[in-house]
Amino acid sequence: MKALTPLRMAMVGGGPGAFIGPVHRMAAELDGRIRLVAGSFSRDAARNAEAGRMWGIDQDRTYGDWRTMLAAEAARPDGARLVAVVTPNDTHFAISAAALDAGLHVMSDKPATLNLAQALDLARKVEASGNAYGLTYVYTGYPMVREAREIVRRGDLGAVRKIVVEYAQGWLSRPIERDGDRQAGWRNDPAQAGVGGCIADIGVHAFNIAEFVSGVRVERLCADVASVVPGRVLDDDCNMLLRFEGGVRGVLIASQISAGARNGLQIKVYGENGCVSWSHDRPVELALDLLDAPSQILHAASGYLSAPARARVRIPTGHPEGFIEAFANLYADMADAISAGRTDPTPVPGIADGLRGMAFVERAVAASRDGEGWVSLDGVGL
Amino acid sequence: MKALTPLRMAMVGGGPGAFIGPVHRMAAELDGRIRLVAGSFSRDAARNAEAGRMWGIDQDRTYGDWRTMLAAEAARPDGARLVAVVTPNDTHFAISAAALDAGLHVMSDKPATLNLAQALDLARKVEASGNAYGLTYVYTGYPMVREAREIVRRGDLGAVRKIVVEYAQGWLSRPIERDGDRQAGWRNDPAQAGVGGCIADIGVHAFNIAEFVSGVRVERLCADVASVVPGRVLDDDCNMLLRFEGGVRGVLIASQISAGARNGLQIKVYGENGCVSWSHDRPVELALDLLDAPSQILHAASGYLSAPARARVRIPTGHPEGFIEAFANLYADMADAISAGRTDPTPVPGIADGLRGMAFVERAVAASRDGEGWVSLDGVGL
Amino acid sequence: MKALTPLRMAMVGGGPGAFIGPVHRMAAELDGRIRLVAGSFSRDAARNAEAGRMWGIDQDRTYGDWRTMLAAEAARPDGARLVAVVTPNDTHFAISAAALDAGLHVMSDKPATLNLAQALDLARKVEASGNAYGLTYVYTGYPMVREAREIVRRGDLGAVRKIVVEYAQGWLSRPIERDGDRQAGWRNDPAQAGVGGCIADIGVHAFNIAEFVSGVRVERLCADVASVVPGRVLDDDCNMLLRFEGGVRGVLIASQISAGARNGLQIKVYGENGCVSWSHDRPVELALDLLDAPSQILHAASGYLSAPARARVRIPTGHPEGFIEAFANLYADMADAISAGRTDPTPVPGIADGLRGMAFVERAVAASRDGEGWVSLDGVGL
Amino acid sequence: MKALTPLRMAMVGGGPGAFIGPVHRMAAELDGRIRLVAGSFSRDAARNAEAGRMWGIDQDRTYGDWRTMLAAEAARPDGARLVAVVTPNDTHFAISAAALDAGLHVMSDKPATLNLAQALDLARKVEASGNAYGLTYVYTGYPMVREAREIVRRGDLGAVRKIVVEYAQGWLSRPIERDGDRQAGWRNDPAQAGVGGCIADIGVHAFNIAEFVSGVRVERLCADVASVVPGRVLDDDCNMLLRFEGGVRGVLIASQISAGARNGLQIKVYGENGCVSWSHDRPVELALDLLDAPSQILHAASGYLSAPARARVRIPTGHPEGFIEAFANLYADMADAISAGRTDPTPVPGIADGLRGMAFVERAVAASRDGEGWVSLDGVGL
Repeated sequence: MKALTPLRMAMVGGGPGAFIGPVHRMAAELDGRIRLVAGSFSRDAARNAEAGRMWGIDQDRTYGDWRTMLAAEAARPDGARLVAVVTPNDTHFAISAAALDAGLHVMSDKPATLNLAQALDLARKVEASGNAYGLTYVYTGYPMVREAREIVRRGDLGAVRKIVVEYAQGWLSRPIERDGDRQAGWRNDPAQAGVGGCIADIGVHAFNIAEFVSGVRVERLCADVASVVPGRVLDDDCNMLLRFEGGVRGVLIASQISAGARNGLQIKVYGENGCVSWSHDRPVELALDLLDAPSQILHAASGYLSAPARARVRIPTGHPEGFIEAFANLYADMADAISAGRTDPTPVPGIADGLRGMAFVERAVAASRDGEGWVSLDGVGL
Repeated sequence: MKALTPLRMAMVGGGPGAFIGPVHRMAAELDGRIRLVAGSFSRDAARNAEAGRMWGIDQDRTYGDWRTMLAAEAARPDGARLVAVVTPNDTHFAISAAALDAGLHVMSDKPATLNLAQALDLARKVEASGNAYGLTYVYTGYPMVREAREIVRRGDLGAVRKIVVEYAQGWLSRPIERDGDRQAGWRNDPAQAGVGGCIADIGVHAFNIAEFVSGVRVERLCADVASVVPGRVLDDDCNMLLRFEGGVRGVLIASQISAGARNGLQIKVYGENGCVSWSHDRPVELALDLLDAPSQILHAASGYLSAPARARVRIPTGHPEGFIEAFANLYADMADAISAGRTDPTPVPGIADGLRGMAFVERAVAASRDGEGWVSLDGVGL
Repeated sequence: MKALTPLRMAMVGGGPGAFIGPVHRMAAELDGRIRLVAGSFSRDAARNAEAGRMWGIDQDRTYGDWRTMLAAEAARPDGARLVAVVTPNDTHFAISAAALDAGLHVMSDKPATLNLAQALDLARKVEASGNAYGLTYVYTGYPMVREAREIVRRGDLGAVRKIVVEYAQGWLSRPIERDGDRQAGWRNDPAQAGVGGCIADIGVHAFNIAEFVSGVRVERLCADVASVVPGRVLDDDCNMLLRFEGGVRGVLIASQISAGARNGLQIKVYGENGCVSWSHDRPVELALDLLDAPSQILHAASGYLSAPARARVRIPTGHPEGFIEAFANLYADMADAISAGRTDPTPVPGIADGLRGMAFVERAVAASRDGEGWVSLDGVGL
Repeated sequence: MKALTPLRMAMVGGGPGAFIGPVHRMAAELDGRIRLVAGSFSRDAARNAEAGRMWGIDQDRTYGDWRTMLAAEAARPDGARLVAVVTPNDTHFAISAAALDAGLHVMSDKPATLNLAQALDLARKVEASGNAYGLTYVYTGYPMVREAREIVRRGDLGAVRKIVVEYAQGWLSRPIERDGDRQAGWRNDPAQAGVGGCIADIGVHAFNIAEFVSGVRVERLCADVASVVPGRVLDDDCNMLLRFEGGVRGVLIASQISAGARNGLQIKVYGENGCVSWSHDRPVELALDLLDAPSQILHAASGYLSAPARARVRIPTGHPEGFIEAFANLYADMADAISAGRTDPTPVPGIADGLRGMAFVERAVAASRDGEGWVSLDGVGL
C-alpha cells in the first residue's frame, strides 16, 4: 500500500475539561492518516492556548474564534481540509454550515443539529457543497458492529423479525445538573441540548445502531419518554415500541437513570434462523446464536470475519481495541472517502442519518408528551 | 428439627411424553416431604398404567379417571391430601375446583384457568374452601429471585424506578405446530390454551416475576402482541410498555420466535441507588450494581444472603441447583403451609397471582388487537 | 420404554447434619428408578430414627448397625439390592467389602478406601464378587463433561496435547477445624481421611476428570503438596505438573485455601486443532474453541449433542440442571447396569478409578514430602 | 495542569508489516505527550521511506541506518530525546546501549536483550548513563492490573499465599514457521530469539505480571519447558511450579500451542482473605473475591479506584480502553519520568525487570532440559 500524506484537520471545541473533544483528537491522529494542525478549542483564551500547546499546534493556528479559523485555514495552501465539530449541540449547525461554505469537509459529533429544521437546512447545504459530511455515531465504528451488519446483510439470519436495543446509563440518577456538573448541565438545558435529553444524547445512538445493523428503517414508534428525577427539565428515561419496514418489531430502551449501569449499549437482531447480538461491555466479541446449533462467539480481528470487519483493526485477535479505536475507524473511513474524492462518507454515517435521528427525537418526545400512542416517522422531509 | 411424615400427593396428568408432569413429580418428592401415592396420569389406559408402574404407585391407586380418583382418595384414611394439576390449561379449572370440593389442597401448574372468568370463579371457590391453593410460577422458587425481592424490600435500591423483564425463547420460530409437535400444538390451539399463546405461556411468568421481585403492581400497559410466524393463530411475540404503581416504568418482552434463544428469562429492577438483576442463564447468581460502587455478584447458598434465600438450598455454595430444585422449593413451601394449617401458601404464588395473570393476558391481547394504546388492569374484579 | 420396578436401596451413613448423604438419597430417588427402603444412617440412635422417619423408611428397616442391616436385607425377599456407602473415608472399605460379601451391589462415595492397600484388596473383592461397584466421582455425571469426552474421543480436537485442570475452594482458608467445624475436622484427621487432605478430598476429582475427559492416563507427576494454613496436619494446597500417556503435558491445581473461591472445578483439554473446556460455574455449558474459528458454546439438552450427553437430561435446553442431577445420573447409570446384569458400571467410575485415585494421592504426597521431583504412577499394582 | 511541549522520539524498527512497531507509534503519540520525529524503520530502503511518509516524518529524518540516526539526532538541537527500540530481540542490546551512549533515553520492547549476559551489561550501562530506560511489559500498563497491585499492597487480601498465572495462545499450534510466517519465523530462530521460544515471548510477561501484582519475587521454580510441535527448535509450551519469597506458592502456564486460545493472559493472586483476578479477555474489569462476601467486579475509570488506576484513563467508565491504551500508559509514564528528570521510570518496568526476565528464561530452559527439578533464581547477578 502506498503511504499517504496525512490529511490536515482543524477542530472547533474540545478544550480542557471536555470529554469528547480529546477523543476526536486521539481518534483522528491514531492511524497517522490525519494530523491536527489548527484549532479553536475554547472561547476562553487561556484554555484555548493551553489546548493548542498541549497538542503541539502552532500558536498562530490556535484561533480564538472559529469563524476566523475557517477563513484563515481555507485560505492557506497548507490549510486544514477537514473540520471536526465537537462543540455543544446548539452550535453544530452554524459551524458545520460555515465550514461547508468555506469549502471544507466536516466531521461532526452527534447530533447533527439542535433540531429537525436545522437538520433539513444542513442536508440541503451538504448536498450542494460537494464536500463530505460525516457524523460520529461512534458505535458504527466498532468492527464487530460492522460484522453484525454483514451477517444480517448476507442473510445468515433469514428475514429480520425483531430488534431489541438497549442503552442504559446511570450517571443521571441524581440531579447532578443542579450541583454544577457541566456534562449534566448542558444536556439538561433545552437551549443547548434541544427538546431531548436522554433520547437525544444516547437514544439516538440506539436508534442509529438498530437501523445500521438490521438494514431496516423505523417506520413507526410508540414512546414513553419521561423525566424520572424530580425537577429535571428534559427526559432521562425512554422506552419505546418500534415498527420497522416490513413489519419488523422492535423495542428501544434508553435511560440515564438506570442506576448501576455504566455505558451499556446492546443490540439483538433476530431473524428467522437466529440472532446476532453485540454488547458494548465486550466490544471485541459478537454473539451469533442460530437455531438448533451451538452458540458462537466471533472475535475481532479474526481471519474468518467479513472484509468490512477486518478492514479496521490494528492488532491481532486477542488484543482488545476499544472506544477510541472505534472512533478512529470513522476518521480513517472519512480520510479514505476524502482522499478518494467521495462526498458520501459511507460507512461513516452522514447527514441522512443525522436527519433521521432528529426526526426520531422530535417525534418521540412530542408523541409521548401528547399521549399519542403510535406515530409515524414519515412526512418529516426524510 | 423433628422429622415429618411425608405428605401424600395425587397427580392429574403427567403421563409419559409430558414435560412438566415429571418435573412436578421429581420436585414434590425431592426433599422427602411429599410422596406421590396416587395418580390419574393419562386418559390412555396403557400410558396411565405405565406411569403408575414407573413411579412405584400401587395399581389400585392408578386411576383411569380423575373424578374417580378425587372421590376415592378423599375417602381413604391414608388418602392423598394434595392434588397436583399438570394437565393442559383448559382442564385446570374443573380439576382444581373439584379437588377443592373434595376437601383437598391443590398445587396447579400455571395458568390457573383457561380465562379470567374461570379464574374469578376459582378465586371464590378457594376462599370458601379452607384449603390451600398454590400456583407453580416456578421462577419465584429460585433462591436468588427471592434474594432479589428481599434486596428491594429492604430498600437497598431506594425507591424502585424502572423494571425491565425479558423472556426470550426461540423454539416456535418455525410453525412446528403444523408438523405435529405436541407441545407446540396445544399451545397454539385457543380451545386448549385460551386467548394467549406466547403471552399466556411465558409472558405471564415475566409479568409475575416483575411484580414478585419489585413489590409493585402493574397498573397500565401498552402492548404489541403479534403472531409473527405466518399462519399462526395465537401470538408468538409480545412487547409492552408498563406502568406500575407509583409511576414506576417498565418494559416487558416475551417471545417464542427469538430464534437462537433457549429459555432466557431475565429481570432488572432499578431503584434510586442501583439495580438488581437476575438471569435464568446463571440462576445461582444475582447481580447487584450500586451507584459508584463495584458490581457485586451474590452466590446462592452463601451465608450473607437473606433468610428467605438461605431457607431453600440443599447443598453448599458453588454446587449449582437448578430448575427442578426451584420447583421443589415451591412444593416444600406448600408442604410447610399445609402442615402448619395455613391456607395462604406464601411465598408460593396463589390464586390472586393467577387472577392477575389472566387479567394481564386478556387485557394485553385485546388492547393490542384493537389498537387501544395504554389500557388499565383495573376493573377486572381484582 | 417399558416401565421398570424401582431398584431397592439401603444406605449406610447420611444422618442429619451430613452433607453428602442427603445428596445420595435425593439423587438415587430423583428419577424414580431407585427407592430407599432401608438404612443405617447414624450410630446415634435418635438421629438414626429421625433420618428414617424423615425419609419415610419403615421403622424395622432403620437399623442401628450396618452389619445387622446387610444381613437382614440380604435375607429378605424384598430386601435392598444396592447399598450406598456415604460414611467417612475410614469406613468405606469395611462396609463396601461386607456389602459385596452379602451379595449386594455397592455405590460408594469417594474415595474408595482409606489407602491404596485397602483399595487393592477391595479391587480383588469386587472382581470376585460378581456384583457391581460404583464410585460417585460426581463430575463425571454432568452431561457436558460427557460431551467433552465424546468430542475428544471422536477426534474433533486431533491428538490431545495438553490438559489443565484446576479445582479451587476457599473454605479452609482459616483453621476452622480447630473451631469445631465437623466437615473440616474429619478431613484434617489422618485417621479418618488418610494421608491426603485437599488432594484426597478434591484433588482426586481433578485427577479423575482429567483422565475421564481426555481419555489418556497420567503416567508421571511432579507435585508440590503443602499445608499452607499454619498448624494444619494434612495438605490444603496442591500444585502439580503432569505427564500423561503419549507425552501429553498437564497441570493440576487443587486448593482449599484459595480464599474467595467456592467450588471452582474447571478443565481444559487442548488438542492439535482446538480446546474443549468446562467449568463447574456454568455446568450446562461446554466451550469449544477450534483454531481459526468462532468460539462455540454448547448447551446441555440440545439436539446436536452426542448420545451420551443427551441420555441423561430431564428437561429441555435452557432449563438448568445441577449437582444433584449429575449425582442422579450416576445412580441412573448404576440402575441401568444392575438391571442389565452388568458388573461393569460404566460410565459410572468403578474400582479401577478408585485404585488410580488412591495411587495418585499416596504418590503425590510422598514425592512432595520427600522432594523427589518427577515420580511415576506405575508399579503400584494398577 | 500546565500543558507540556511534546517530547521528541525516534524509533528503530517498526516498518510496514511489523506488528509491535506501529503499536509503539500509536501508543507514544496517543496522548499528545510524545511526537515521533525521526526513525530508522527498516533496513529495506523502500519500506523505510514508506514508513516515514506514512507517519509524517521529514524525509531527512528517515534514516537508513540506526547508528547514523542516533548520532544525527543527538546532535540536533531539536533532536529526539527518547529512542523506541522495536526490532527483533537480537538487536535490542546493541541499539539500547548505543542510544544510552548517545545520551538518549530508551524505551525498549521486551525482552531487554538476547540473553542474561547482555542484560547484565546493559544494566551496568543504564546505571552509568544517567538516562531513563523503560521496558514495555505492556500488561503492567493496564489500569486494572495496577489496581490489582494496589489491592495487594494495601493488604486487602492479607498475606499473599498463592499466585496462578496463565498465558495461553494457540497461533503456533502448527509449524507455520516452516511456511514462511515471519512472526513465527524469528521467534523460533535461536539466533534472533535467544534460548527461549514461548517462554521468552510470553512466559516472561506472565512472570513479570505475577511479580508486579503480587509484590513478591520468585525465588525458585520447577519447570517443564517443551517443544510440542514436532520439529520445532525452541519451546512452545511451558508449565512451572513457582516458589516466591516468604514461601508463597505459584503456578505459571505459558503456551503457544493452546489451540483455540487467542491471547489469554490471566492472573489470580490469593491472600488469606480473598483473591484478586484479572484477565486480558476483559481488561477493564477486575474481580475481587473476598471470603464469605459477594464477588466484586471493579470497573476501569471508576471513582472508587486507587489513584494509580485512575491516573491513566482517558474516557469515562463504560467506555473501553484496550491494548494500545495500555501501551500508551507506559509511554505517558515514561514522558512523566523524563520531564521530571527521573532516571527511574517507575511504574514502567526497567532494566531490573529485564534482568529478572532473562534469568527466568535461562534458568527455566536449562533446568527443564537437564531434568533438574527445583532450581533457584539466585546467583545470577540479580
